[in-house]
Amino acid sequence: MKKLVNAPDRVVPDALRGLAVAHPELAVDLEARIVVRRDAPRAGKVGLVSGGGSGHEPLHTGFVGFGMLDAACPGEVFTSPVPDQMASATRAVDGGAGVLHIVKNYTGDVLNFRLAAELCEDAGVEVRQVVVDDDVAVTDSLYTAGRRGTGATLFVEKLAGALAESGAPLDQVAATARRVNESSRSFGVALTACTTPAKGSPTFDLPDGQLELGIGIHGEPGRERRAMMPAAELAEVCLDAVLADLPPGGPVLVLVNGTGGTPLQELYVVCAEVDRILRRRGVPIARCLVGDYVTSLDMAGCSLTLCRTDDVLLRLWDAPVQTPALRWGR
Amino acid sequence: MKKLVNAPDRVVPDALRGLAVAHPELAVDLEARIVVRRDAPRAGKVGLVSGGGSGHEPLHTGFVGFGMLDAACPGEVFTSPVPDQMASATRAVDGGAGVLHIVKNYTGDVLNFRLAAELCEDAGVEVRQVVVDDDVAVTDSLYTAGRRGTGATLFVEKLAGALAESGAPLDQVAATARRVNESSRSFGVALTACTTPAKGSPTFDLPDGQLELGIGIHGEPGRERRAMMPAAELAEVCLDAVLADLPPGGPVLVLVNGTGGTPLQELYVVCAEVDRILRRRGVPIARCLVGDYVTSLDMAGCSLTLCRTDDVLLRLWDAPVQTPALRWGR
Repeated sequence: MKKLVNAPDRVVPDALRGLAVAHPELAVDLEARIVVRRDAPRAGKVGLVSGGGSGHEPLHTGFVGFGMLDAACPGEVFTSPVPDQMASATRAVDGGAGVLHIVKNYTGDVLNFRLAAELCEDAGVEVRQVVVDDDVAVTDSLYTAGRRGTGATLFVEKLAGALAESGAPLDQVAATARRVNESSRSFGVALTACTTPAKGSPTFDLPDGQLELGIGIHGEPGRERRAMMPAAELAEVCLDAVLADLPPGGPVLVLVNGTGGTPLQELYVVCAEVDRILRRRGVPIARCLVGDYVTSLDMAGCSLTLCRTDDVLLRLWDAPVQTPALRWGR
Repeated sequence: MKKLVNAPDRVVPDALRGLAVAHPELAVDLEARIVVRRDAPRAGKVGLVSGGGSGHEPLHTGFVGFGMLDAACPGEVFTSPVPDQMASATRAVDGGAGVLHIVKNYTGDVLNFRLAAELCEDAGVEVRQVVVDDDVAVTDSLYTAGRRGTGATLFVEKLAGALAESGAPLDQVAATARRVNESSRSFGVALTACTTPAKGSPTFDLPDGQLELGIGIHGEPGRERRAMMPAAELAEVCLDAVLADLPPGGPVLVLVNGTGGTPLQELYVVCAEVDRILRRRGVPIARCLVGDYVTSLDMAGCSLTLCRTDDVLLRLWDAPVQTPALRWGR
């Protein structure tokens, strides 16, 4: 295994130490394994907490900061965090206005966040849970009942985060988070498998010259294997799947997401094809984000996420954000 | 070859089309193959132009914007841009106060930028050239006479860019750029080779269980091959090389740079080790940047760059910047 690590069981705490060095503006609690905004809790502000298995960086720790998450709890690689982590994060950001849990739809995550919510509600903190399930590739997968949560998580965290920052109440923040999820669809493709530190070898076998359509963010099987194809054709296949399921509506937010092992140059090539195809199909692009945001360790590939917007959602998108991985406007 | 591209000879223009979609705030001239700030030229402001082979994204196109570069000219993959591109970029950003060329030390780049400078000076534009040569690994390499230019390019472009934004004159901006280069040292390591679209297979052979110390950003040979080692030991080897050559001085800017195929999680692991080692050696870290900034396509690995600072340089680092890849403070 070739990885820049010390030992498989030290990867997550070691990476959190590094995050603390690079981002002194975040409070990294190595004991509780949570990452929290330094100004939390803020009285009267709804707190936003997310989390999930590690290995998808910058998701979620890189989205903690002004205008987005108040806290993140990273689990072991590709493994749900435990309810204690989630409860610590929830208590750390509760400013009296309640806390929203943003949870990707994987069975372990959903159950553990539910347990954490019960613990916190017993202690008097009001909690709502929004489950993100935007991946159209498959229903019921290796770790999931129903659809998997992937790229839309970024949109939910950004838009709900901006609304919470403006002082909106818990139910309104939760409703917007749900609306963003319902307005979003994703589809991913893998060119190579990823290697987890614990296993030390690729998690599945993907022969030369083939790609996996509809891949999950942990390398879960997708819809089918196909021979490699040009970026233009691949973008068409991915957008076919997304658009077939995307509700009608306004201009779209687009995320051209890299899965960790793909050069930025190639993501821009895909972005150009997405633009060409959406123009032809009469789907206006409102904003477009290109880069590695929801990764799968060293997997080469990409995913496309579209989210229908309106003026309200676009204003929330454009609102200032200051996190390690997303920053603008302030 | 598994790449998200249409055809090897279309990668650069296709990626530029995608950049234009994602960043409407930049003017992307597909004909002249240059990327320019929309507000250029600005009267009285020194213009900053950089460029080099593509495949190192976000360098340089991702560093165009307020507080950093005024224009970038991307060549073909791992190939110098041509003098015409450089001259077009220079003319596009000349606001009457002259233009600084920031050039990584590769023979083709240096010569072509010199030719472009002559063309522009004949047309009445004052041009200075600063050559970046921070890589301590080797002198004289596959594409270079002298030391190679790598991660310090980001520091030079950010710090000189902030100074130019403040209205400083050309000679002062050039002197600061030179000082930043002289205060910076880098060392890189590869865990895997990269695959160029044109070749379609790895550019060199790096067996399982081995890494290449002192790798160049095009996969040029480094100092030696060694067996894989833990991140703590690897960080020590890299910092030994950097610190042996780094001039004495104040607290350091640190860049923990990913080469394209390495998960962000691993870069944070390396960052934690860099912090531990520099503390032990009494080298205070002033600021630390972690991520993929100067990449080599899909190469797995990382490089470390340190730059000695003082209050003046730190103020320039903290000054607002608004580019696709670096953004803060505004």
